[in-house]
Amino acid sequence: MKNTGQRLRSIGRRGDRPRPQPPAGSAANGSTASWLRECRPGWALPGKFHSDEEIYRADLDRIWRRGWLFAGHSCELSKPGDYFTLQVAADPLIVLRGPAGTIHCLHNVCRHRGSPICNDAAGHVSRLVCPYHQWAYGLDGALLSCRGMHDLDKSQLGLKRVHVREAAGLIFLSLAVDPPSFEPAHELLAPLAQPQGLQRAKVAQAVDYLVRANWKLVWENNRECYHCNLNHPQYIKANFDHFNADDTTPRIRKEISRVVARSEKKWQATGLAPTHTQTGMTKFPDAENNIWFSGNRTPLVDGYVSESMDGQRVGPLMGDYSDADVGTMRIRTLPNFWNHSSCDHAVSTRLLPVGPQLTALRVWWLVDAKAVEGRDYQLDKLMPFWQLTSEQDWEICERQQRGVNSSAFTPGPYSTVKEYNVDSFVRWYLKMLAKQK
Amino acid sequence: MKNTGQRLRSIGRRGDRPRPQPPAGSAANGSTASWLRECRPGWALPGKFHSDEEIYRADLDRIWRRGWLFAGHSCELSKPGDYFTLQVAADPLIVLRGPAGTIHCLHNVCRHRGSPICNDAAGHVSRLVCPYHQWAYGLDGALLSCRGMHDLDKSQLGLKRVHVREAAGLIFLSLAVDPPSFEPAHELLAPLAQPQGLQRAKVAQAVDYLVRANWKLVWENNRECYHCNLNHPQYIKANFDHFNADDTTPRIRKEISRVVARSEKKWQATGLAPTHTQTGMTKFPDAENNIWFSGNRTPLVDGYVSESMDGQRVGPLMGDYSDADVGTMRIRTLPNFWNHSSCDHAVSTRLLPVGPQLTALRVWWLVDAKAVEGRDYQLDKLMPFWQLTSEQDWEICERQQRGVNSSAFTPGPYSTVKEYNVDSFVRWYLKMLAKQK
Amino acid sequence: MKNTGQRLRSIGRRGDRPRPQPPAGSAANGSTASWLRECRPGWALPGKFHSDEEIYRADLDRIWRRGWLFAGHSCELSKPGDYFTLQVAADPLIVLRGPAGTIHCLHNVCRHRGSPICNDAAGHVSRLVCPYHQWAYGLDGALLSCRGMHDLDKSQLGLKRVHVREAAGLIFLSLAVDPPSFEPAHELLAPLAQPQGLQRAKVAQAVDYLVRANWKLVWENNRECYHCNLNHPQYIKANFDHFNADDTTPRIRKEISRVVARSEKKWQATGLAPTHTQTGMTKFPDAENNIWFSGNRTPLVDGYVSESMDGQRVGPLMGDYSDADVGTMRIRTLPNFWNHSSCDHAVSTRLLPVGPQLTALRVWWLVDAKAVEGRDYQLDKLMPFWQLTSEQDWEICERQQRGVNSSAFTPGPYSTVKEYNVDSFVRWYLKMLAKQK
Repeated sequence: MKNTGQRLRSIGRRGDRPRPQPPAGSAANGSTASWLRECRPGWALPGKFHSDEEIYRADLDRIWRRGWLFAGHSCELSKPGDYFTLQVAADPLIVLRGPAGTIHCLHNVCRHRGSPICNDAAGHVSRLVCPYHQWAYGLDGALLSCRGMHDLDKSQLGLKRVHVREAAGLIFLSLAVDPPSFEPAHELLAPLAQPQGLQRAKVAQAVDYLVRANWKLVWENNRECYHCNLNHPQYIKANFDHFNADDTTPRIRKEISRVVARSEKKWQATGLAPTHTQTGMTKFPDAENNIWFSGNRTPLVDGYVSESMDGQRVGPLMGDYSDADVGTMRIRTLPNFWNHSSCDHAVSTRLLPVGPQLTALRVWWLVDAKAVEGRDYQLDKLMPFWQLTSEQDWEICERQQRGVNSSAFTPGPYSTVKEYNVDSFVRWYLKMLAKQK
Repeated sequence: MKNTGQRLRSIGRRGDRPRPQPPAGSAANGSTASWLRECRPGWALPGKFHSDEEIYRADLDRIWRRGWLFAGHSCELSKPGDYFTLQVAADPLIVLRGPAGTIHCLHNVCRHRGSPICNDAAGHVSRLVCPYHQWAYGLDGALLSCRGMHDLDKSQLGLKRVHVREAAGLIFLSLAVDPPSFEPAHELLAPLAQPQGLQRAKVAQAVDYLVRANWKLVWENNRECYHCNLNHPQYIKANFDHFNADDTTPRIRKEISRVVARSEKKWQATGLAPTHTQTGMTKFPDAENNIWFSGNRTPLVDGYVSESMDGQRVGPLMGDYSDADVGTMRIRTLPNFWNHSSCDHAVSTRLLPVGPQLTALRVWWLVDAKAVEGRDYQLDKLMPFWQLTSEQDWEICERQQRGVNSSAFTPGPYSTVKEYNVDSFVRWYLKMLAKQK
Repeated sequence: MKNTGQRLRSIGRRGDRPRPQPPAGSAANGSTASWLRECRPGWALPGKFHSDEEIYRADLDRIWRRGWLFAGHSCELSKPGDYFTLQVAADPLIVLRGPAGTIHCLHNVCRHRGSPICNDAAGHVSRLVCPYHQWAYGLDGALLSCRGMHDLDKSQLGLKRVHVREAAGLIFLSLAVDPPSFEPAHELLAPLAQPQGLQRAKVAQAVDYLVRANWKLVWENNRECYHCNLNHPQYIKANFDHFNADDTTPRIRKEISRVVARSEKKWQATGLAPTHTQTGMTKFPDAENNIWFSGNRTPLVDGYVSESMDGQRVGPLMGDYSDADVGTMRIRTLPNFWNHSSCDHAVSTRLLPVGPQLTALRVWWLVDAKAVEGRDYQLDKLMPFWQLTSEQDWEICERQQRGVNSSAFTPGPYSTVKEYNVDSFVRWYLKMLAKQK
């Protein structure tokens, strides 16, 4: 795993360390009603939703500490004892592979005096030993030894466990005591992602970003391709997303039909046929049914077999693919993950909230586990398509944050034909925010 | 216009981005009375006036969003479509010249999802096109097109307009819905500034500063020359400001009388004779009559024809001047502008609040439009007088901020003979603060 | 005094400037009771004690503005007019030597408009002249002259004085109006420190640190050697502190007995015999009797005559010592000082609070006044032992701060055998916090 050359495109204060946030709890419920009254259906959120500390705490409590969060890839934990760390708001976490191969997620907070146990981004351990006073925990978090402590009920002092689930190589965690069922997501995503072979992939590179924008602005940006034409010159060459109902010409309609038909013919039997067969973006999320996950296979523009600068392959075929012509597999889960996978590589993006106006983003590029850099792939061919597209979006989000902070900002209307998914995201968000429990 | 070599003397956190501030509104009025009770006439403001978040919000509401703010120079917008941007607290603004030559000021916030339209410090546009989704506005802010939007009343979605007025090349804006009359200021300043030819000047250089002090400390510093003797060795060579009633010797009195008489004799007919004819500073502001603007022509010390290091000219004559011996023209307007203009150059200073303890300052050096750098003027001759003087003051203000933050700080008395203008500023400020509407 | 090569190991935001804090006052007393109810005797403090703004203000009021704070060394003020500055939270202070040799401490805040008078870390003055308007004060703070001010009662406008006391070369100040008696501390510390000759020492070097941790985490770290084994490889070679009752083997017991016996035999007559004669740390503080100071003489491991990397001398003998074999003298005073002195050098550490999660630390290395760098001592021999040990601790504290900020942190139990002093510190702290006056 080549995960070291990480780059911080800090646009925020680098030194920023999230302040611990008191839970919004029931005290904030009176506020929620008044916040909701300020929202107008079909129009953007009022500016305070992107800067107010109290709303941010409510976001943490009702969304980030309730749902399922993407953590990373199971291939980053190739053997028992491998771990990586991440931080959700003020909460440091460890994700690791236990001796039996099971993946665990633990609060990275010693039960003695609170020191984080693992202080690196990733590594390998046989036991979890706190560097402060060497309290030692098993890979499942159980307290094994604590020199100098007497009359202690060790069984009560294990590292606090966090729910964790895997779907075809993607690791999700939930900070909730009693999280919602992961099954529906697993049922949809596991078979879809299976052929991509993410479980046996390798991370070719990962880049960290600290973006000075509220996490919801990042999602609103992600949920429409209305902005693609001028902002994403690379992306629109490969995809049909930016052609919405009102600007899909007969020529475009014909082109996608042809591509879809060809793929269906080829892949129907193996389950690799496109599931999103139209121009524009697939509908997601589904606020009414609280569907926070989705995935589909989508054709690429003719001539593109990979989301690369020239549409050509940038690495060996991944997973079960026997042919490059498999379009792209796409997954997105709220509140913090999306993935675009081509025949030869996969790109995952993870959001983590740092503050009301600060979001940590990581983008991973994955290739086949046996691929060797320099021989089978070059980073400068593999990365630009999504690196450019991502950084174009982060800049948009940071600019927008500045605008919605203005005392003169009033929310505008969403296009029903181009921003239906942004509207769905906002409706989903407000529904989650309103749920008291 | 050479406005690019800007330099940030960041003393604050560079990355600082102002948090959007809830309006202090009527809820704060109870506080105002208690704040005012802590103030002692003739003595400095209590420390909290320079750090408290609530008082800062009240300053924004009752002063910065009510009065007239200096924005920049009309010569920075030489042709239709030229624009520059600025930010008042959290509010990004565009100032531009429309097709008919009219100057407009608009909130730099797209009516769709809030992205700023213009993201550079200055530039040229034919229409205002939002970089996010290409909503396009006319130079007067009218919404012209918004691809993909249906059933939209475009007339309701123009960029929000800000009041703007010009006086002899100086552009002022007001964020108020119903601003106070600009006429009295125009009547005084336009004829005074006319001969300087600022409308047809060029910006030779502009320097940006981020000063870690409350905006009022910057004004208190500006409103007295009690501090000049040891802090401004350059400034006091050229000027009579630092000689107050109690230290104007007969020799000094004789010297200024001679200079004034000479100027009056020469310029009476053309209206360029001194209007401030004594040592010390002219009285400003006038709190009782709420006079927030003033201007005057003031003689320089014999041997000085320009506010330059050696008193000699540093560029060609500006405007209507036919002779270098015109003293200095000086203008100041509350809450954010002062200008000192010599025969050959003009220096403008603009304040913008960024936070309770953070103020953005810009200093411009203007010369005749036809002057060519290297041939007609050198930046290293033009700039030092006011660059040194300004930076000496910013350092004083930052130090003072540290002192007034002390829990041991108690306000001291103003000198009635040397700090009458500081006292007037404080009285003006408190009067504005107390006005509910 | 070589005090210039100071180094900021800024781990926090360098530009951070403490906001002035409103006094917690009586309004906070209701909160105190609720904070105390969350604490469990014998267990660590809840996380909010290390991040909450209101608790931080209470810490400032009830501990930092009530007790005695270490300021610096009298040898840093070798002649009348010498001064150094420091800042306690938002309060800038000057410590100086007056004409009669007396040490004064004054608020570094001009009584006119609040500017700090002395803006350097240290220097020499004949009078205290404010750089803003040249108000001049005597070295005792009395206002001597204020040009331009009339009808002023100068006697009411002296620099505000701060209580100051010295004990054998160590300067302590109190911001309290009516501080607790310093006598008991003086009685214990002055004779103990006398032979070290700190009054006639010289500062060989001082290093400043800005540590991103609450000040109490720094103390909790200091009050146990449970963490020493793996974190302080240098420290444990020289000392017996890390051997607590439960891991002092017969061999260790024999070793310390032998060292103690040798020292007692040699020094009984001169008062340099060990006063702490066991392994483990001496008990401190004494919460029940509110003992905030202590000092003792402690033997070093055989073969060590100095707390240096190899245990050998790193400079000439200090003070009254005639022999290198004097173990170490140790002093600690709450809330902000500890010192370890060997035969040839002394190391002082001072804490100053900057914010709830930010503490300024200074470490001084002192040697005999006549020692010449290069000839009698080398910084690279003198400094590493305590520089490494200190920086190891600062890193531990910063990591722990991250952990206690987690929403999942719950305080753990203290070891009664290894963390008795941490528990005493917490009990002392909570007792101070609970005292209304």
